[in-house]
Amino acid sequence: MAMKLHSYAVGAWQQGTDDGTLVTDAVYGEPVALVSSQGLDFGAMVRYAREVGGPNLRKYTFHERAAMLRALAQYLQARKEQFYELSYKTGATQYDSWFDIDGGFGTFFSYSSLARRELPNERFLVEDDPLALSKQGTFLGRHILVPREGVAVHINAFNFPVWGMLEKLAPGLIAGVPAIVKPATQTAYLTEAVFRAMIESGILPEGAIQLICGGIGDLFEHLNEQDCVTFTGSAATGRKLKVHPSLVANAVPFNMEADSLNCAILGQSVEPGDLEFELFVQEVVREMTVKAGQKCTAIRRVIVPQDKLEAVLEALKRALSKVTLGDPRRPEVRMGPLVGAAQRRDVQGVLEQLRARGCEVAFQGSPELLGGDWEKGGFMPPTLLYSPKPWESGAHDLEPFGPVATLMPYGSLEEAIALARRGQGSLVGSIVSYNRQEARTLFFGCATHHGRMLILNRENAQESTGHGSPLPLLVHGGPGRAGAGEELGGVRGIKHYLQRCAVQADPTTLMALSNEYVRGAEVREDAVHPFRKYFEELQIGESLLTHRRTVTEADIVNFANLTGDYFYAHVDEIGAKDSIFGKRVAHGYFLISAAAGLFVSPAPGPVLANYGLERLRFIEPVGIGDTIQARLTVKSKTPKDPRPGERPTGVVTWAVEITNQEGKTVALYDILTLVERRPSVQNSTASA
Amino acid sequence: MAMKLHSYAVGAWQQGTDDGTLVTDAVYGEPVALVSSQGLDFGAMVRYAREVGGPNLRKYTFHERAAMLRALAQYLQARKEQFYELSYKTGATQYDSWFDIDGGFGTFFSYSSLARRELPNERFLVEDDPLALSKQGTFLGRHILVPREGVAVHINAFNFPVWGMLEKLAPGLIAGVPAIVKPATQTAYLTEAVFRAMIESGILPEGAIQLICGGIGDLFEHLNEQDCVTFTGSAATGRKLKVHPSLVANAVPFNMEADSLNCAILGQSVEPGDLEFELFVQEVVREMTVKAGQKCTAIRRVIVPQDKLEAVLEALKRALSKVTLGDPRRPEVRMGPLVGAAQRRDVQGVLEQLRARGCEVAFQGSPELLGGDWEKGGFMPPTLLYSPKPWESGAHDLEPFGPVATLMPYGSLEEAIALARRGQGSLVGSIVSYNRQEARTLFFGCATHHGRMLILNRENAQESTGHGSPLPLLVHGGPGRAGAGEELGGVRGIKHYLQRCAVQADPTTLMALSNEYVRGAEVREDAVHPFRKYFEELQIGESLLTHRRTVTEADIVNFANLTGDYFYAHVDEIGAKDSIFGKRVAHGYFLISAAAGLFVSPAPGPVLANYGLERLRFIEPVGIGDTIQARLTVKSKTPKDPRPGERPTGVVTWAVEITNQEGKTVALYDILTLVERRPSVQNSTASA
Repeated sequence: MAMKLHSYAVGAWQQGTDDGTLVTDAVYGEPVALVSSQGLDFGAMVRYAREVGGPNLRKYTFHERAAMLRALAQYLQARKEQFYELSYKTGATQYDSWFDIDGGFGTFFSYSSLARRELPNERFLVEDDPLALSKQGTFLGRHILVPREGVAVHINAFNFPVWGMLEKLAPGLIAGVPAIVKPATQTAYLTEAVFRAMIESGILPEGAIQLICGGIGDLFEHLNEQDCVTFTGSAATGRKLKVHPSLVANAVPFNMEADSLNCAILGQSVEPGDLEFELFVQEVVREMTVKAGQKCTAIRRVIVPQDKLEAVLEALKRALSKVTLGDPRRPEVRMGPLVGAAQRRDVQGVLEQLRARGCEVAFQGSPELLGGDWEKGGFMPPTLLYSPKPWESGAHDLEPFGPVATLMPYGSLEEAIALARRGQGSLVGSIVSYNRQEARTLFFGCATHHGRMLILNRENAQESTGHGSPLPLLVHGGPGRAGAGEELGGVRGIKHYLQRCAVQADPTTLMALSNEYVRGAEVREDAVHPFRKYFEELQIGESLLTHRRTVTEADIVNFANLTGDYFYAHVDEIGAKDSIFGKRVAHGYFLISAAAGLFVSPAPGPVLANYGLERLRFIEPVGIGDTIQARLTVKSKTPKDPRPGERPTGVVTWAVEITNQEGKTVALYDILTLVERRPSVQNSTASA
Repeated sequence: MAMKLHSYAVGAWQQGTDDGTLVTDAVYGEPVALVSSQGLDFGAMVRYAREVGGPNLRKYTFHERAAMLRALAQYLQARKEQFYELSYKTGATQYDSWFDIDGGFGTFFSYSSLARRELPNERFLVEDDPLALSKQGTFLGRHILVPREGVAVHINAFNFPVWGMLEKLAPGLIAGVPAIVKPATQTAYLTEAVFRAMIESGILPEGAIQLICGGIGDLFEHLNEQDCVTFTGSAATGRKLKVHPSLVANAVPFNMEADSLNCAILGQSVEPGDLEFELFVQEVVREMTVKAGQKCTAIRRVIVPQDKLEAVLEALKRALSKVTLGDPRRPEVRMGPLVGAAQRRDVQGVLEQLRARGCEVAFQGSPELLGGDWEKGGFMPPTLLYSPKPWESGAHDLEPFGPVATLMPYGSLEEAIALARRGQGSLVGSIVSYNRQEARTLFFGCATHHGRMLILNRENAQESTGHGSPLPLLVHGGPGRAGAGEELGGVRGIKHYLQRCAVQADPTTLMALSNEYVRGAEVREDAVHPFRKYFEELQIGESLLTHRRTVTEADIVNFANLTGDYFYAHVDEIGAKDSIFGKRVAHGYFLISAAAGLFVSPAPGPVLANYGLERLRFIEPVGIGDTIQARLTVKSKTPKDPRPGERPTGVVTWAVEITNQEGKTVALYDILTLVERRPSVQNSTASA
């Protein structure tokens, strides 16, 4: 019996008012689900996201939303067996599901970590240092990013029903933007199950996510400039949606990820018998068979040196002949079916076109099935094509979205590059070579046409995540045929959901806006030494001007004696005369050490350690007899997640400026300290 | 007599084969130029850019191309009087031309500097630090950006014939991408003159720039995924071009900058008599009158507290009544004509619509002319509208592209914000207030809807560049109605012309690709101490492993005595037991100072100074009796432009790792040194 899927709209589960589309199991062709969004009020969904979901999400900081993501991933992971069961029905083996299901949860974990590592614990993101826009320094610029106040519409493809949803949700939710998820109809039942668990968890605030199982109706008519659409799917569909009059009229950002004709290149330097030769064959076979080749990143074009063509062909045949086909639930099955019989017909249609355009079938796997239904299921054996004249081949233009790749020879590296570029823009390409110069030539030859390049060799093979896997930290997307969009890529992916606003202001106002001390802003001084204050008590712009110290010849000599640093500019009167300083000068490290001596409050207190230093610049040399003074100012504060057993702390960054007797700046730097939280109050101090 | 303009195509000046469009002088309506691109081979232009211009530009590094830009700006600046002469014909006063002509040259100077400051002297840009993608560290990721191998088509608006061309060319040429410039027909004669001077200068390599005076014919049909289009003009035209089937089919990036209904908000805290009150009035009047209000950034909506409405109105009337109208060549003239009589008719048409939608004419300047022709020229006096019911006003939807703004009252700050957002996305908004809390509330309320916000007050008024001026370092562009594009913004603007490619590789390959030492990569050691080598002789990855040193109690005590840093974790046995270290530990600054003592080669040599330090992290504490050792490795090298009289040098960044007796990493950091170039050979060492 087919279950009728629900959508989740305006805070409630709703079924379509008609029967909708019947979706069948990929393995046996049995009915699984009915999918319809008939009767949904799409305008109400958009309003609900804007008026309820957005404000609810924006109450939190980046770190707080990151914690929600982690909690969600933990909640989902505890329930993953039920998702695996459904995933088999889509044709996925357990190995395939690992990419889709665990890979999806992993993306949540990964975004949760990177947000806490790389974003401030704030509701906005300051992107850069203050920019000097004037000579006197009263007029500065800076870019501040805030969450867009609309809804993100995520349109996903059928092949990754879980990862596809989660990799789009992760950066958007961290950014603070609610989402409407629209899975592909064919595998919506798995997406719906995972989505249902997210709602049940109660972790996300009301209105943060909604789901449309079925068509999107007039959804686009309701979008405006604060919203955005992210699309993964075929180039043809993507192009059609991109020019939707409502999106164009309202300048709604549209990010597109289309499948592409990705390549793998075997280096000329690789010989049969080399580990790289094996790695190449393994990678091609894996890409042809994982998800039965239904991956937008799969290797479609296998580009090898002419003189190694035979050897590669034989090795690929050997490996492909071991690929077992059948019911993905059976552990001995290596490859499951395509998502359905219709998909197989599509792929076979493209195969026919490829044969008409210069491709020969070099190998086709056995049609023996270990469970599953040939007629009703989506089974298709892995098929290797060979294109003897690659310049006349259809393999650069036609995409068989199944277990199919085309082998083609190249003469020179230049030709390999030119063939790779014939794909007119790809998500990813692989170079297999242990020769760095060759890898470099191939990389720079191909980089303009690729969103990602994997360089695989014996050094990284053990730890490589492979050609086909987009990673949260790396950009996913490619130019041209691949859609010219970008997803993921760490913080870059989050920025797609933020509006960048350049701000011009005086230093004090800029400090007030960015919650960060800006050089030149008004500082405040206090009778209590700042090292005697807990994290919560320290204020941005709070400052200490130290007593002074005259730097003597004895200091320089003693410092050299103690550290062993007898660099001539410090200790050699003759050499120092010809140095760029023209005289003996103090060691730079003496200056920052002496500055610490000036500003440190020695007794135990809330400041636990100085664990790092950034942006140190020595600006003016300090000679014998010069007198230095330091100013220490609270620049920024970030509370840390307390780990079990650790004292709760926060990171305080201090701007330090050392000046000389003329008031000239001698050195500028930031020091990073760990500061204890006030014992009773350990709440976040973020504000926006 | 009208001159017939030339286009510059495939390396030659060409005139259209028909008479084309007659363009007249904005002041007297006299014929100035005939504009036609009839007969140009647009496909050949695109091929020429790709096959000649691109390869020629990409031979150079970012710094070398930056030097070309500076030379061009100097060449043009020496000829600016001739451009001012032509600029008068467009209706621009000398003050207006200062923004257009000097502002354009300034953008070249500014981009030249920032490229040399912020980009490497290479043919590619490494965007981030190596990203750990695996536990053992054999598999790393990174983003490398390379010039797109196509042509940038720049479509410009009539109002800034010089700046409009140059602000688009600057980032694209620095990136290494050739351009085809298409100026607006009405003021193409000025663009052509400046373009002609650039060609005459001979500074740019062949094929770097081409010019189309007239229509673009079938140009778009020839573009592919390596090309891009940047557009400035009306939203209606932009939207039409954006969905051109050829651009969509080939995923050609399209960046759009449309005029918008920008606002200025007077803070509630500002009282008549405050300096901010004056600043507000001045800014509004300037924005209404500069370029006769023909600026996409001009203030169109003047949002003021209800209770200050009268005072603002009176002050604006007073100031506007002093605006003199006439021939822009005459020094007593403050405002010139619109670009032509047709433009005036357009603006008057919009004025009529605004009156029909709730706006009243509050003030109209005198029609007295100091030279110029009322009938044939584009003259129009400054016109201030008043919208008593701002929620019903057409001023949020209709743009009079002339000397017109609409005054409207607000009750609360929330209402001011909501009114500002009614513009549905603007390039820029101004907040005039000296109250930081008020400025913060207004800023965060408006930021989602603006590409830029100016906060103006007594602190920065003297140095402020004003509401209407896009700056090279700040993003120019806004969401929604403003086109949702981005230009300028420093390096961001350059990245629009680069393809970002994520690369995954082992550390040594990554080092080879990025010309930068990557932790974990193979290092090479040499008998000669690296401090004894000139800049040219140092190799990326060249490394020195020092002798060892045991840290003693005496070291810690002596360091405390010398620096005055008696922090308890170093010198207080009792306090240190309770510290996060659990024992007395060496000062972090002692460790980096002692490391210098280990690796420095003391005698005079090519390494002139250590002028800075970055990314210092203390990872493992060092206690009494621990033995440290340092490794110093050449991380990256950047030759510096030698200044007259200075010794030629380069910046060498060294990665330093301090380890302890267990091989554990104690500290990691980068030091920045100035290293002398080899006396005879001072060529660039960049490579790609």
